[in-house]
Amino acid sequence: MQPFYDYLDSHHDQFLDELKRYLRQPSVAAQNLGMTEMAALAKERLEARGFKVQILPTGGHPVVYGELGDGPRTLLIYDHYDVQPAEPLDLWESPPFEPTVRDGNLYARGVADNKGDQMCRMQAIEAWLATMGKLPLKIKWVMEGEEEIASPNLEAFAHQYGDLLKADGCLWETGGYNELDQFSLWLGLKGIAYFELRLKTMGIDAHSGNATMLPNPAWQLVWALSTLKDANNRITLDGYWEHVVPPAPDEVALLEKVPFDAEKIKSTYGAKAFINDMDAAAAKRAHYFEPTITICGFESGYTGAGTKTVLPKEAKVKLDFRLVPNLTPELVYDLLRKHLDRRGFSDIEIARFSAERNARSRADSAVVQAAITAARKIYGADPMIYPLMPGSGPMYPLSDMLGIPAVLAGLSHNASRAHAPNEHIRLKDYWLGQKFIGEFIEAFAEAKDEG
Amino acid sequence: MQPFYDYLDSHHDQFLDELKRYLRQPSVAAQNLGMTEMAALAKERLEARGFKVQILPTGGHPVVYGELGDGPRTLLIYDHYDVQPAEPLDLWESPPFEPTVRDGNLYARGVADNKGDQMCRMQAIEAWLATMGKLPLKIKWVMEGEEEIASPNLEAFAHQYGDLLKADGCLWETGGYNELDQFSLWLGLKGIAYFELRLKTMGIDAHSGNATMLPNPAWQLVWALSTLKDANNRITLDGYWEHVVPPAPDEVALLEKVPFDAEKIKSTYGAKAFINDMDAAAAKRAHYFEPTITICGFESGYTGAGTKTVLPKEAKVKLDFRLVPNLTPELVYDLLRKHLDRRGFSDIEIARFSAERNARSRADSAVVQAAITAARKIYGADPMIYPLMPGSGPMYPLSDMLGIPAVLAGLSHNASRAHAPNEHIRLKDYWLGQKFIGEFIEAFAEAKDEG
Repeated sequence: MQPFYDYLDSHHDQFLDELKRYLRQPSVAAQNLGMTEMAALAKERLEARGFKVQILPTGGHPVVYGELGDGPRTLLIYDHYDVQPAEPLDLWESPPFEPTVRDGNLYARGVADNKGDQMCRMQAIEAWLATMGKLPLKIKWVMEGEEEIASPNLEAFAHQYGDLLKADGCLWETGGYNELDQFSLWLGLKGIAYFELRLKTMGIDAHSGNATMLPNPAWQLVWALSTLKDANNRITLDGYWEHVVPPAPDEVALLEKVPFDAEKIKSTYGAKAFINDMDAAAAKRAHYFEPTITICGFESGYTGAGTKTVLPKEAKVKLDFRLVPNLTPELVYDLLRKHLDRRGFSDIEIARFSAERNARSRADSAVVQAAITAARKIYGADPMIYPLMPGSGPMYPLSDMLGIPAVLAGLSHNASRAHAPNEHIRLKDYWLGQKFIGEFIEAFAEAKDEG
Repeated sequence: MQPFYDYLDSHHDQFLDELKRYLRQPSVAAQNLGMTEMAALAKERLEARGFKVQILPTGGHPVVYGELGDGPRTLLIYDHYDVQPAEPLDLWESPPFEPTVRDGNLYARGVADNKGDQMCRMQAIEAWLATMGKLPLKIKWVMEGEEEIASPNLEAFAHQYGDLLKADGCLWETGGYNELDQFSLWLGLKGIAYFELRLKTMGIDAHSGNATMLPNPAWQLVWALSTLKDANNRITLDGYWEHVVPPAPDEVALLEKVPFDAEKIKSTYGAKAFINDMDAAAAKRAHYFEPTITICGFESGYTGAGTKTVLPKEAKVKLDFRLVPNLTPELVYDLLRKHLDRRGFSDIEIARFSAERNARSRADSAVVQAAITAARKIYGADPMIYPLMPGSGPMYPLSDMLGIPAVLAGLSHNASRAHAPNEHIRLKDYWLGQKFIGEFIEAFAEAKDEG
């Protein structure tokens, strides 16, 4: 692979210029800003490497889909060309869409999440083609345009194009280095179901003197919520635990090896203790493997300073369910609706927001093993392998749903500030990442599934 | 009493001018607007009738205290010279501090609550003195300056001046006509204790993915609240019901006679049903005689549109307890603190706001009987007698605490819009009210307590 490495090392200026051009194009899905232009630019940059590219409609922002190469194995790559809104702008030290190098870092909106990964991967493929000949496998590349708005159309897209997308493994967007700056691989994500519970009992607010007789929606939400999770933090939603599958022994074994600094977490958030006074081992296990129901927001009545003697007409609660196997957004919605109805809370409306399913791949799958092999060569050590990230994302439709194992391997580090002002990557990670991609392609083309 | 009536009838122009002058002086305690000037004006107007007036310090806005007359019986009068803020100004059809007559009504901030009562009472006494000779009793007049900010200094004032304030009965501010426009008397008020429960579990908000391990203050408040009142609207605060005294048979008998239009109440507020599906009789009884705990406000986390996956660092709930005999603000605070501590909620801070005790006088007391006698003469029918108003006010320190029976008899009607824009009284009620005061003075000077 030396010629491949040499090509990469000798093209830093051109590659950085191309990356900057890619980052200069705003593409904020939430604001419908620059999306068409960005899709065209992604298509152009893929085509420049010989990809056959189609713009596939989804009902929302389209998927840019590219294919290149041939071989016994097929690699699916998932990235997204949309980025988070750049606001608040005044907290950026350089403009979000004017990529700027400072102290070896490249700052721009989307560079960590996840345009940097895209360009790094494309340039690695360019170097391969220039120095190693044809690709030893087939690459199918899905670039979504709606990841930052919770991928509302990706599952339908994956259903529609299931045959087209068939592959032996999937290289997912993002990932990179953990909080100890160890290069790491993540094998999955939790699911999420986000609801707003709304109850309106009156047309107008009443004086609180009428609380003797008029219904208070805040009390009703309190009572309803108190039946969902008890004061020991145990979820008590009817029928819920029947569906929860505990982690497999190999997932538990993986987790044993990954770092978890309980005291640092508590001090970062200023929390006196973990819930239920869990020790570090219990908190770590809960964090990766337990489902949650979180009150993200509760609003009712008067919330200003001092007093107002009001009986509010309505109340709203935002609830975030994090999902482990085999909980799904549809299932928890159904359980929740029935649970509330059974207790006389049929008047509580449930509005549905984000819905993403749990996704988890096995460590012994070929795509993960290829990533491990490549990481050993590039980073000089075994990568840290996490059974999953405790966050959520749209992995399920392209992985578990289509039966394609997936791995997160990217360029971010612990302080990359994805979604925040001054998002950045370290350029040294970018140059190493290109080499990782070459080694990964080689390893995956040769690997066999052990599972 | 004909000369007294004639004097009143022949002085409408002067009396209205004087009332307007009284209303033109802003006196918003909450904004510390015009308070000194208003106290001076109240003193001047009382002195114009021969009252011996002192400005008594309270630590806040002072009490204007006047004495006049002599006789075997002493009448305490309670009014307040402060008014509610006039905002929102753009909803007033004429400026709040420019008294304006339209369609037989007089519009101004404070005219119904309760400067109209003060001037009506002073002018009636002027007419008495001009036509009937000396007053047949001693009047002690307390004009408070902090009623609209929950009378934080009145109880201490009443303790300090308990001897000075001794009296046989008390004519309270406000009152007037019920929703059927029947002249009515009210014999008491509920108490109130207003708290804010505050819990902060972290120094910063966290991503909701951390809900596996970090404590959520909104959940903790939900659990704490759910132990205070159950889903049947039954208050379950430890030790609470031991202190609640049911209404006396004569109070229940009084309530039987007063109107209560259940369907109108439900339709006014757009409520489908009363809590616990109470019928009209049950709702009426609950409304007058039951204590409450009301969630007036609940605030935590993200409450904007759509989703934010946040684990909030703090949560706040405003709680309004309406109190019946023998619940007191101090008692319910103490019960609440212990109840929360006993269940592991010691971290929940309880901030105390309004605290007013229940006050209730007997219908057979001389001051109530005198008001009934006077009302029969002036309004041509028995007044409607309510055992209490379901609202709260600072009556306790000057009535039950000092052993002085009190009655609410005033000038407001059901649409007077006290505390709201376009506050007003009907001038015809004002002229009748002057005559009522004369008859009331005569009746009370002669009456004997039956109780």
